[in-house]
Amino acid sequence: MASSTPEQNRSPEVRRDPLNNRWVIFSPARAKRPSDFKSKSPQNASSNSGSSCPFCIGNEHECAPEIFRVPTDPKSDWKLRVIENLYPALSRAVEKDDDPRCETSCLGYSDRVVEGFGFHDVVIETPVHSVQLSDLDPREVGDVLLAYKKRIEQIKEYEFIKYVQVFKNHGASAGASMSHSHSQLLALPVIPPTVSTRLCSTKEYFDQTGKCSLCEVQPKDLLIDEAKHFVSIVPFAAMFPFEIWIIPRDHSSHFHELDSERAIDLGGLLKLMLRKLAVQLNNPPFNFMIQTSPLQVTDSQQLVYTHWFLQIVPQLTGVGGFEMGTGCYINPVFPEDAAKVLREVNISTQM
Amino acid sequence: MASSTPEQNRSPEVRRDPLNNRWVIFSPARAKRPSDFKSKSPQNASSNSGSSCPFCIGNEHECAPEIFRVPTDPKSDWKLRVIENLYPALSRAVEKDDDPRCETSCLGYSDRVVEGFGFHDVVIETPVHSVQLSDLDPREVGDVLLAYKKRIEQIKEYEFIKYVQVFKNHGASAGASMSHSHSQLLALPVIPPTVSTRLCSTKEYFDQTGKCSLCEVQPKDLLIDEAKHFVSIVPFAAMFPFEIWIIPRDHSSHFHELDSERAIDLGGLLKLMLRKLAVQLNNPPFNFMIQTSPLQVTDSQQLVYTHWFLQIVPQLTGVGGFEMGTGCYINPVFPEDAAKVLREVNISTQM
Repeated sequence: MASSTPEQNRSPEVRRDPLNNRWVIFSPARAKRPSDFKSKSPQNASSNSGSSCPFCIGNEHECAPEIFRVPTDPKSDWKLRVIENLYPALSRAVEKDDDPRCETSCLGYSDRVVEGFGFHDVVIETPVHSVQLSDLDPREVGDVLLAYKKRIEQIKEYEFIKYVQVFKNHGASAGASMSHSHSQLLALPVIPPTVSTRLCSTKEYFDQTGKCSLCEVQPKDLLIDEAKHFVSIVPFAAMFPFEIWIIPRDHSSHFHELDSERAIDLGGLLKLMLRKLAVQLNNPPFNFMIQTSPLQVTDSQQLVYTHWFLQIVPQLTGVGGFEMGTGCYINPVFPEDAAKVLREVNISTQM
Repeated sequence: MASSTPEQNRSPEVRRDPLNNRWVIFSPARAKRPSDFKSKSPQNASSNSGSSCPFCIGNEHECAPEIFRVPTDPKSDWKLRVIENLYPALSRAVEKDDDPRCETSCLGYSDRVVEGFGFHDVVIETPVHSVQLSDLDPREVGDVLLAYKKRIEQIKEYEFIKYVQVFKNHGASAGASMSHSHSQLLALPVIPPTVSTRLCSTKEYFDQTGKCSLCEVQPKDLLIDEAKHFVSIVPFAAMFPFEIWIIPRDHSSHFHELDSERAIDLGGLLKLMLRKLAVQLNNPPFNFMIQTSPLQVTDSQQLVYTHWFLQIVPQLTGVGGFEMGTGCYINPVFPEDAAKVLREVNISTQM
């Protein structure tokens, strides 16, 4: 194993760092991406337009296989497509009851290794290259959210998948390698550290109070906007300036419980938040992440104390050695100030 | 409080996010830095040279106050200086027994807020603008390490300081805002999450085995180089490609136990690792962080199971929504492959 070279292709592995209680996916296939192993500085997302962009309508043959499209009729033009990632971080799972525990020696650390099986899919949010997610109307944004839900429900059939992370990278410095509007799902054979930590802390709150901590959030000065089923806030200890959380008003443990009515409602509020960030912060690169619960519920009370939300982070400040070393963040904007600014952004003429 | 604006200056606060068990420093002063609130993309470190760089010899009057210099004689030319940060993340502590617990209302979350007192200092590693840390000889790099030690020993007198993070950002995309070679110390009134996690996991290992987990590391295929008192390895579950840890061979819980002989030895190995990264990866931006133990030892066994190390991370890949959402990382290079490459880099002619 020591004689293998970086050029040589190996199957992905997921390794645990016990010292830091963190999982790392080792994925040689990701090194094929053109942007890997260059300095991060002047990084640009591929801005292939029209004819040369594989995500554009008409170029479907240049993509990895399609999983489904909306509408489903293969003869009509599609509005969105869910496809496999051409450079997947994990090997695609085949058997529904695969056990990805590593049985080989793995440098003598077999208790810290899981074979890298899972799913890494892409949601192409629109057939048109120049359209961004926030240009869609609330119902169309809702369709994207319902596509995430449908794909999670398909993946849920694979018993060894523990968690599905839905995320969007917009702009090169937020990690997007393609400029055509898209988001991603990564279905993992392990429960990620942020999710375990969240489970522990919401359980602790529940054990002390009998309540769900996110149901109890009192937005007050931290409120940005409200919709029928959702509120948007800046969290009290936001890690990043102008970070936003969109939280369902009614208790819901898993994102994939979302129904069509709530999808449109969330679509409208998500669109509004993205427009407000774009207007206030000059169209910044951003990420959003759906923070949900593990697929398998191991403790019946877990459904009562876990509550999903959508986290939006505009990329305004870099991360350096302090953040990497400590896991603490320095945020120059107080959350109540950020919330006030975002509450008051006037985008009426631009919607 | 809701009527304050982002422009208005407030004292720093340290807030805890209980959901994610994370501390965030809210520091309005940091927004004064020229690079804040621009998109991250084409960011450049200030490359003021010679006459206009405040860190250069002769321009001391443009800097925040000096804490000490080496050599200490104020009449001789300095080789390195430790100064206050002009844009500190935390308010400088005054009283040695200050209690920074927040006693005001803090939006009703007083149990989650600590006043932002601490220290944020800069170590100017050389008087000459064009010299980098890896250009210094092992003894001079050792002097920089001994300056960290001396400053930590001074800060240790302040009872409410719980942890000192030493770190270096090299290159704009690694977070450096000045190109003149420097590193930083941030002395915190809280124990950061990475340190608490490390304490828990090393304690667990000790409880199970009676041993210190880092004393037990068997580098084998992960070894890069060895010095008399230190080894350098790629960790088994490295978060980032070509991440390096330099670990003391003999058990030592706190970095500031470093003596002069070991400082020179570590200086040589650190220099070697930085040269190898520069040659192999085309002078990448990088961060290094000293991962040590909390200043106060609350459990006498803590000295036995904690073991400091120095972590070096070249900045080659960006971080996107997946990493932010999950706390998992995707690394395209297997650690044993990275170790082999770094072991074999030939820099003999360039040292």
